[in-house]
Amino acid sequence: VSPHDLALAQPPGSSGPGTQFLAEIKEQPQALLDLLQHRTDFDRVAATMRERSASLVRLVGHGSSDNAASYAVYAFGLEPRWTALRDSITLTVHYGTKLDMRGSTVLGLSQSGRTPDVIEYVERARKAGAFTVALTNELDSPLADAAEAVLPLTAGAEHAVAATKTYLNTLAALGLLAAAVAGRGAVFEESLRGVADQLNAFIPTLEQTIGAIAAPFTYTGRMFVVGRGAEFSTAREISLKLLETCRIAAEPITATDLAHGPVAALDPLFPVWLIASADKTLRAVVEAAARARTAGATLIASGSRAAAIKGAEYVLPTPEPASPLLGPLLSIVPGQLFAWAVARAKGLDPDAPRGLTKVTLAR
Amino acid sequence: VSPHDLALAQPPGSSGPGTQFLAEIKEQPQALLDLLQHRTDFDRVAATMRERSASLVRLVGHGSSDNAASYAVYAFGLEPRWTALRDSITLTVHYGTKLDMRGSTVLGLSQSGRTPDVIEYVERARKAGAFTVALTNELDSPLADAAEAVLPLTAGAEHAVAATKTYLNTLAALGLLAAAVAGRGAVFEESLRGVADQLNAFIPTLEQTIGAIAAPFTYTGRMFVVGRGAEFSTAREISLKLLETCRIAAEPITATDLAHGPVAALDPLFPVWLIASADKTLRAVVEAAARARTAGATLIASGSRAAAIKGAEYVLPTPEPASPLLGPLLSIVPGQLFAWAVARAKGLDPDAPRGLTKVTLAR
Repeated sequence: VSPHDLALAQPPGSSGPGTQFLAEIKEQPQALLDLLQHRTDFDRVAATMRERSASLVRLVGHGSSDNAASYAVYAFGLEPRWTALRDSITLTVHYGTKLDMRGSTVLGLSQSGRTPDVIEYVERARKAGAFTVALTNELDSPLADAAEAVLPLTAGAEHAVAATKTYLNTLAALGLLAAAVAGRGAVFEESLRGVADQLNAFIPTLEQTIGAIAAPFTYTGRMFVVGRGAEFSTAREISLKLLETCRIAAEPITATDLAHGPVAALDPLFPVWLIASADKTLRAVVEAAARARTAGATLIASGSRAAAIKGAEYVLPTPEPASPLLGPLLSIVPGQLFAWAVARAKGLDPDAPRGLTKVTLAR
Repeated sequence: VSPHDLALAQPPGSSGPGTQFLAEIKEQPQALLDLLQHRTDFDRVAATMRERSASLVRLVGHGSSDNAASYAVYAFGLEPRWTALRDSITLTVHYGTKLDMRGSTVLGLSQSGRTPDVIEYVERARKAGAFTVALTNELDSPLADAAEAVLPLTAGAEHAVAATKTYLNTLAALGLLAAAVAGRGAVFEESLRGVADQLNAFIPTLEQTIGAIAAPFTYTGRMFVVGRGAEFSTAREISLKLLETCRIAAEPITATDLAHGPVAALDPLFPVWLIASADKTLRAVVEAAARARTAGATLIASGSRAAAIKGAEYVLPTPEPASPLLGPLLSIVPGQLFAWAVARAKGLDPDAPRGLTKVTLAR
């Protein structure tokens, strides 16, 4: 029995608020390894994208799926140097605009495969000439049926309403696909194995210390979460976890946009979380931290360069990955565990936030 | 002296918090008409975009300029049926990724023409084969120098730090350019004249009533602003005004994304502002309102279909424009005046929010 197995073990029959959410946070390294069993699927889809010169990558999804789509902008930009965008569902589905989508790959992201407007977008995009691909946990779903190709997320059963494994595996799937398009799938697969090892090593440690760091934020009402570049997806996903599990009005913001207005709202009761990674955007994040500190905000720093954030009252360092594109797979974890700990301190249940259901059928 | 002139008149030498911000809100109809003097510039740039088949439109900007860029997704989608995207500055400027930008038009948005990373992005995009266009108030600026073509925003001098005329004229400029590409510049110009008339008629009326509606929100700490489709730009810009002038943690959110997590955070102290326009997304906005009301949130409704939001405690209707694409030019105004009134009630100065400067040189 390794330390990892001990940390994963739950007392038999354990339950209570947040039990599933915490268990699924810990299941992420294994879910990531499960995804790698399907690398040939990614190679196959990547080959079709290249053959069809479908090099404008349009992503559609909601919630955590849409947050992961932000990552794809960097994955496709840095790996095959293709342009990826979070496309407007409204333009195609509500306004009925017929865009010429030849030369486009559409990636429809939905854990359940049942998000109505994502399915409808994919159906219309396919008619408009796009190569359509579903990324979903449910291979037998309307989204999988609507798309020409399917990539499995293999996150396994996710019981907590707030997504964890799904988000991490969507990032990994998007990175793996982008790398496969660039002919570097094998290298990326290997680096994802390294990330799984790093996650296994640091999640149990962080679980032990997160309670003390989270406690002072039990009654926090609002927060900015700052990231830039590949880590903007992390800022978005941490904000969503804080909103849905802790009822904190958390807003993601890029390091530079903080200076374009929002900094004026800061004060000591408006903390700022900064994701500082080993990346060419680090200087911008460090400068944003200095502006936030000058405005009187309390600072929380996370990421592999958390120590670079001067004056941070709370520091949640993460291991440094083999390349900056892997950073978001590690830096999301402190946000997930922080949300779990704050929710527990507030007496909220992150497994089942009020007013939410696991499958969202809103259009 | 028309009622409009009376409303525009300031007592000689009047000053005090928010004087410039209010004056500039009122100057918007005239600024819009000034823009139309330059329609031939838009026709010329549109002709080049068509000749060069530069039909992937990449927009870059920060703050209000970036909010206006959200509008361009719909303007280019609905008019010439081209794909527009808010491009990643980080990918090109910080990571140094060399994307192939042949077939792209780049629209660099900056009131001052001095935003450092927008200038650098435009320089690199030009080398990468894009047709680069600067949209700026300052024709003699580094951004104008960096781009192949320049379109004047003609917003005139804007003294308040919080942008108003610049935002409205950026929307109008993007709409006019998109319409010109589609060969409908003359029709769009005419409809913008109609918008100027509508603005002149309703701004003075709204100014009289906004104080009573804004007063209950004097100590509000957080808010969601919901829009979808073309009105998502409005949701983003109203949120930014509330953040920078009133220190309210206001977050823009699409009607559908509200159901994907954030609705769990709502309670009676977390109001939701909904922009309800005569548009095919109205049903989604009405459904989002019902979800927010069920969660106990106080509702504020604005837009030409504000009356469709059942149970809204506060209603700020706007005139109905000739087409949905014009809606955002009218529906931003209640947000501007609301921010002005709340800031005054709080004793804050929207002309000069703490920690901000008119020209932001942050990277």
